[in-house]
Amino acid sequence: MIFEEHIPEYTLASRAHQSEDTIVEAGSVKIGAGCPVAVMAGPCAVESAESIKRIAGKVKAAGASVLRGGSYKPRTSPYSFQGIGPEGIGWLKEAGRASGMPVISEMVSENDMDLFTENVDIIQIGARNMQNFALLKAVGRTQKPVLLKRGAGATIDEWIMAAEYVLAGGNPNVILCERGIRTFEYATRNTMDLAVVPIIKEKTHLPIIVDPSHATGNWKYVEAVSLAAIAAGADGLLVEVHDDPDAAASDGAQSILPERFADLMEKARLVAKAVGREL
Amino acid sequence: MIFEEHIPEYTLASRAHQSEDTIVEAGSVKIGAGCPVAVMAGPCAVESAESIKRIAGKVKAAGASVLRGGSYKPRTSPYSFQGIGPEGIGWLKEAGRASGMPVISEMVSENDMDLFTENVDIIQIGARNMQNFALLKAVGRTQKPVLLKRGAGATIDEWIMAAEYVLAGGNPNVILCERGIRTFEYATRNTMDLAVVPIIKEKTHLPIIVDPSHATGNWKYVEAVSLAAIAAGADGLLVEVHDDPDAAASDGAQSILPERFADLMEKARLVAKAVGREL
Amino acid sequence: MIFEEHIPEYTLASRAHQSEDTIVEAGSVKIGAGCPVAVMAGPCAVESAESIKRIAGKVKAAGASVLRGGSYKPRTSPYSFQGIGPEGIGWLKEAGRASGMPVISEMVSENDMDLFTENVDIIQIGARNMQNFALLKAVGRTQKPVLLKRGAGATIDEWIMAAEYVLAGGNPNVILCERGIRTFEYATRNTMDLAVVPIIKEKTHLPIIVDPSHATGNWKYVEAVSLAAIAAGADGLLVEVHDDPDAAASDGAQSILPERFADLMEKARLVAKAVGREL
Amino acid sequence: MIFEEHIPEYTLASRAHQSEDTIVEAGSVKIGAGCPVAVMAGPCAVESAESIKRIAGKVKAAGASVLRGGSYKPRTSPYSFQGIGPEGIGWLKEAGRASGMPVISEMVSENDMDLFTENVDIIQIGARNMQNFALLKAVGRTQKPVLLKRGAGATIDEWIMAAEYVLAGGNPNVILCERGIRTFEYATRNTMDLAVVPIIKEKTHLPIIVDPSHATGNWKYVEAVSLAAIAAGADGLLVEVHDDPDAAASDGAQSILPERFADLMEKARLVAKAVGREL
Repeated sequence: MIFEEHIPEYTLASRAHQSEDTIVEAGSVKIGAGCPVAVMAGPCAVESAESIKRIAGKVKAAGASVLRGGSYKPRTSPYSFQGIGPEGIGWLKEAGRASGMPVISEMVSENDMDLFTENVDIIQIGARNMQNFALLKAVGRTQKPVLLKRGAGATIDEWIMAAEYVLAGGNPNVILCERGIRTFEYATRNTMDLAVVPIIKEKTHLPIIVDPSHATGNWKYVEAVSLAAIAAGADGLLVEVHDDPDAAASDGAQSILPERFADLMEKARLVAKAVGREL
Repeated sequence: MIFEEHIPEYTLASRAHQSEDTIVEAGSVKIGAGCPVAVMAGPCAVESAESIKRIAGKVKAAGASVLRGGSYKPRTSPYSFQGIGPEGIGWLKEAGRASGMPVISEMVSENDMDLFTENVDIIQIGARNMQNFALLKAVGRTQKPVLLKRGAGATIDEWIMAAEYVLAGGNPNVILCERGIRTFEYATRNTMDLAVVPIIKEKTHLPIIVDPSHATGNWKYVEAVSLAAIAAGADGLLVEVHDDPDAAASDGAQSILPERFADLMEKARLVAKAVGREL
Repeated sequence: MIFEEHIPEYTLASRAHQSEDTIVEAGSVKIGAGCPVAVMAGPCAVESAESIKRIAGKVKAAGASVLRGGSYKPRTSPYSFQGIGPEGIGWLKEAGRASGMPVISEMVSENDMDLFTENVDIIQIGARNMQNFALLKAVGRTQKPVLLKRGAGATIDEWIMAAEYVLAGGNPNVILCERGIRTFEYATRNTMDLAVVPIIKEKTHLPIIVDPSHATGNWKYVEAVSLAAIAAGADGLLVEVHDDPDAAASDGAQSILPERFADLMEKARLVAKAVGREL
Repeated sequence: MIFEEHIPEYTLASRAHQSEDTIVEAGSVKIGAGCPVAVMAGPCAVESAESIKRIAGKVKAAGASVLRGGSYKPRTSPYSFQGIGPEGIGWLKEAGRASGMPVISEMVSENDMDLFTENVDIIQIGARNMQNFALLKAVGRTQKPVLLKRGAGATIDEWIMAAEYVLAGGNPNVILCERGIRTFEYATRNTMDLAVVPIIKEKTHLPIIVDPSHATGNWKYVEAVSLAAIAAGADGLLVEVHDDPDAAASDGAQSILPERFADLMEKARLVAKAVGREL
């Protein structure tokens, strides 16, 4: 009685195709099964050369391994802040070098390919672009690590199939990132689906990380969901950290303060250890 | 107790900004409030010069006013048929001219802008690309009519905001198209949300049409949902018609035969008349 | 790749078991395929002997065929108005007799069985109790017509299976009522799923009616959705009408005024005629 | 632009009303903040006096603190196994005494009140009956601990409001149990919403436990989700364990073997310790 839509099987992403886990290397950081849990942290948006450098220093001190910061922001409204653009990518790169971390940033147009391959260590494909196949094909033509967020309305099968586009293009360096799905519940921005962690591990060989910030939309719930993700077996976290959330250019409500992030890292280390991982 | 996400108000799309209804002109066809219900029909995908011409003749004979046919297909799998490409756009244009109908086709990359502005009468932005803002900005820079499908996981507010991107870019010729949303129900491909028709009419001045084919995913339910859409006040329909659904390159299960389409058009005329519209 | 839950087949409800359509008789009113579209109208809650009688006269004059009114209200909060109780059932019965209409009211406890079988013509099982199997078994032991609302979170299969409980108990007089499902969309109280009309007609032999009031939660959208339901082939409507919505004990926002209801009935007659039905 | 439904505030369940955490006592077991994480384990359904006793011994040995087993099963189909009934409740009670554990079982009718208050230690209200207000009012009239499962389609606010019915009736001993919500994702039976753990802790003073078995519907994912729940701060787990899942009368696919349960308990102890709890 199930609706019959022909969903072709994924091939390259499957465990059947490759039994050993894929380990993605971004600079000196390795991400995947058996590696230390990789914590990617930083502001939602790059705002200035100073602020990204300052926040980078703080998250690095707390133990983050990758610096995040968006310079092209897909926003619901055309009148919202759309990101700094190319200049912000430069600031992010500098902040990463200064603090000794590889950097990740979201790309929203295939026409920005050169800018991103030259300046960032991991290209993020956002939830809204998960099925922007032109973009997926573009990143599939490089060898640059790609972090592919699950669409808020996408099934796990569709998400893996989106990864298959990148793999089929010749780029094996794909990291999957769960960030919550859209449901009827309105107490949180999205509903975090943590069962995806064991499911992705079972069906694919790709690293799976979790974004507690977008999943909850509320800094108060970020810690609990982060610890849960690690306990479930996630290979990493993507956390929004800002030292002045009320003044953040976007998503301040879901950003945590550096002090709180440092506290979260302490607890995360204990939970990681409990499940046999380092941080 | 509602989750607080800042959703900025739409401006240009709102009734407050423009009280009279927008009428979009595509060739000789006018689409919008008070105009005849515009029926856009044809195959999911353009398959050959012959087949699109043949089907065009049949849907025109039954009363269709716009010819549809995709030549760039966003598909869940990289291994599924991805569309004919530029050649198919040419075949579609010819079939439209031969049958005397303007044509609509989906664009998936901002880099295809010239091809589309020169050859099609309405550019379709598909559900998966509803928040592909690079694409929305690109079509906003033309004056070409744009049919913007609602994302399967998008709220009405987000959808209107996506239209606002096009309007804010300087293109007033936007048609909204409901095609069902993703819910837990699996008896249909998506769940048709027909309350959007009066809601769009209340909140905006834009034309609203309905795609019963993707909403149901099953040819058996296309007629009932089409008639319902017209009764609800829709300004048009977008219907997949194929004369050999079992051999269709995509979406055969939801395509109806030309004979059935002709029958649907007869009934649609009666319902349209009952609510004070022509077809 | 679909989650495997064993959903047993329905038997008695299926077309395979009974090919001819079930016609349910409530007093002098016949409900089902080929019968006039049955419009059940009245206030959400019975409030006083006078008000229910007054509203009954108005909806009858506009063409309603069944009088609705709840006297046991399942409310989200224990502090909200819970209904008048047995006395209200008496007032409803009187109002029905005075206006010449059979009456429908919701039952929430198996222990009220005698009160309902003696005083109402159709027992309503509400959405929240769709899988209250003790209640379903209780109404299955009578021959009284039962209107079974779809749960807001229930699949079509589960809903038909709930009907099967009543049929399996020995009561063939089941009417299904779609009232919208819960989705991420918040512009309406629920999302009306009108594809259920052809689906129920295909899979079962039971009458299917539609409740536009709960589906939308907003009186402004009731007319459009009502007309759509009739065009889709629904066998009836269940509409909340109140002559003082702002003072209604519950659900005032989704109730329409008697004048508006009369206007809706005029339009409904035209649409019904367009699809070959009377009203 | 949010749909306006009047959701009254909960009172007795709120932190504002009671700042200290409620600790529910079931026999010698204390459930709530600061108490050891309470693991309730056993078969979905009581099948025989022997099997429940045998499984009880195994889960007790692995560290379970409460014995679960249903004897009244709410099933989607009237033709599925409906439970053993009163005799099964007796077998459960005996198995609990023999193994030294309090017992929990689901009640589906207010008319079974005496049987349950006399024989079980915790009355479970199932997801399908979360808004069966007659049943909630019935358990509100006792002092017996009540485990209230979240409805698969219920918001957090509605769920707390359902608890408020029990509290308002005079029974303070309410335990909330998250068991996954219904979403579009079909890889799991439901989607586990673990953000509810910090949310319930923030908004209410009630214990919150998690059911990984119904949330996932697949024994392979039970361990990961259980560990995640504990890391998120849950006060307990409700786990289906069966020593012959293939022969289980219901829900075999989501039941884990006693050996696997013992292994889960070992890991759970480590995670609990990492977040400052015992098991």
